[in-house]
Amino acid sequence: MRTYTVVGVGAVGGYYGSRLAAAGHPVRFLARSDTAHLRRHGLLVESPNGDVFVDEPEVYDDPAAVPASDVVLIAVKATANGEVARALPSLVGGSPATVALLQNGLGGEETLRPACAGRPLVGGLCFVCINKIGPGHIRHLDYGRVTLAPDTQAARRALQGIAEDLTAAGVAVSVEEDLAQARWKKLVWNVPFNGLSVITGAFPQEVLADPDGRALVEQLMSEVQAGAAAAGHRVDDEFLDQMIGDTLIMRPYLTSMKLDYDAGRPLETEAIFGNPVRVARAAGAELVSMAALYAELSILDRRNRRALD
Amino acid sequence: MRTYTVVGVGAVGGYYGSRLAAAGHPVRFLARSDTAHLRRHGLLVESPNGDVFVDEPEVYDDPAAVPASDVVLIAVKATANGEVARALPSLVGGSPATVALLQNGLGGEETLRPACAGRPLVGGLCFVCINKIGPGHIRHLDYGRVTLAPDTQAARRALQGIAEDLTAAGVAVSVEEDLAQARWKKLVWNVPFNGLSVITGAFPQEVLADPDGRALVEQLMSEVQAGAAAAGHRVDDEFLDQMIGDTLIMRPYLTSMKLDYDAGRPLETEAIFGNPVRVARAAGAELVSMAALYAELSILDRRNRRALD
Repeated sequence: MRTYTVVGVGAVGGYYGSRLAAAGHPVRFLARSDTAHLRRHGLLVESPNGDVFVDEPEVYDDPAAVPASDVVLIAVKATANGEVARALPSLVGGSPATVALLQNGLGGEETLRPACAGRPLVGGLCFVCINKIGPGHIRHLDYGRVTLAPDTQAARRALQGIAEDLTAAGVAVSVEEDLAQARWKKLVWNVPFNGLSVITGAFPQEVLADPDGRALVEQLMSEVQAGAAAAGHRVDDEFLDQMIGDTLIMRPYLTSMKLDYDAGRPLETEAIFGNPVRVARAAGAELVSMAALYAELSILDRRNRRALD
Repeated sequence: MRTYTVVGVGAVGGYYGSRLAAAGHPVRFLARSDTAHLRRHGLLVESPNGDVFVDEPEVYDDPAAVPASDVVLIAVKATANGEVARALPSLVGGSPATVALLQNGLGGEETLRPACAGRPLVGGLCFVCINKIGPGHIRHLDYGRVTLAPDTQAARRALQGIAEDLTAAGVAVSVEEDLAQARWKKLVWNVPFNGLSVITGAFPQEVLADPDGRALVEQLMSEVQAGAAAAGHRVDDEFLDQMIGDTLIMRPYLTSMKLDYDAGRPLETEAIFGNPVRVARAAGAELVSMAALYAELSILDRRNRRALD
């Protein structure tokens, strides 16, 4: 049984970590908050696929105290990558660990690669509706597939083991060859729906039900597609249609960016908007609506955090 | 002394109407609300240029009851133009009135022209920071210039009389030849600052102080300039710089669109965003950021009014 260190016990870390724990893997949870609550009350995931309860999770708040694991699964927002980069050397030190980064947006691998000290790095994207509704309490609403792709050739074999473990734990997994392409494809959903959920306060389906909202979603998706193309990655029209189709039948869902905004937490504006806009611009494509949304969200983010100081 | 009917006793109608009344013109105020309050308590304008108090304003709530005036000054939001078009025949009936439309955005003249029954129609734009802070209570904060331009050749002479009256009442007036050009120029301010004040909640200066905000303002202003050019109207770069410069030294000011949004009133999204985007599109120019902002505001507007139903 492969051992796992799950970095972050938000919605993503809590959900996938508890599925791995329920499948019998030793899972070490490295939490920034909620550690006392998790130790005392455990970790509950409510899910239409069946609830999971981890009675006595192995919880740490100090990276140096976490035992060496086979896989370090990073499940934090991109805004915490600097902190993760500082913790990684002790998490992978002395073990032949693989690092897997479950995170949206562009730029995460670039930030974390130096801290991996040559260990294989796998990128991951979660097509899932999950919310953390309280300490140690995750609500899974819909979907759940994880896409994994290797950051380098060396990560291909390490990736297979993680894919097998997740599959055996009841998580659907797709393996893709081109991580950057997979990240751009995920942006097709995140850019319109994360962004417009903060701007308008509307659920993804409500945005699509509004004729102006639908047109803007399509424009933003086309710009992501154009950015991907400029950077050398193909995203088919059918994929855009599929993202719209999936969203139309999705249960009402507050995106993680909207939840972060409402809680005054920093938004992933750089990973999801700024980095892609800049990558596309460097490749000669100007993503105009997306840049406008990026500016609006940056202003809102700064004002929001200032208001809570 | 020319007589005036002022349609709408919001910030614009209250401010310019009381200046005309204070200068000695008989002014009939046609109000949709606040009529009892206006009759009992009068109309107060606080202004850094000197306060004005109209003790016993001549107030009407029924268009049919308003005496024939020389000038019908329309000072309502574009969202009320349908209602004004229904009232206009009785307001101009039997008199050789001139109609003047003090309003932002494109499309107002097209809506009202048929109801003017051949009377001269003058377009007007107010470069002014004024808020209605309560019934019969207007606060003038900054600026105040009115730009007047004729809708047709026949309105040129009628326009002069209004310009003289406003000037004598202490209002700075510019007369321009090309009304459409004047309307596009006003949009250079309204598009970024009205729009982003609703999206971000920030004052115009705060938007400009934010580096992403400043860049988006410049992008939106350039798109207005491109839309004007496509429609055959020149807006100089210097005018854009002047609008930014004026805004940087403007007192903190809630735009009328932000006030309307906060009060749950309909927004002038069509006049300020939708109509210009469509006029530019028909002329071959795609105003991409502006169209995105239009969609966002349309969604917010519909959600906002539904929330208050």
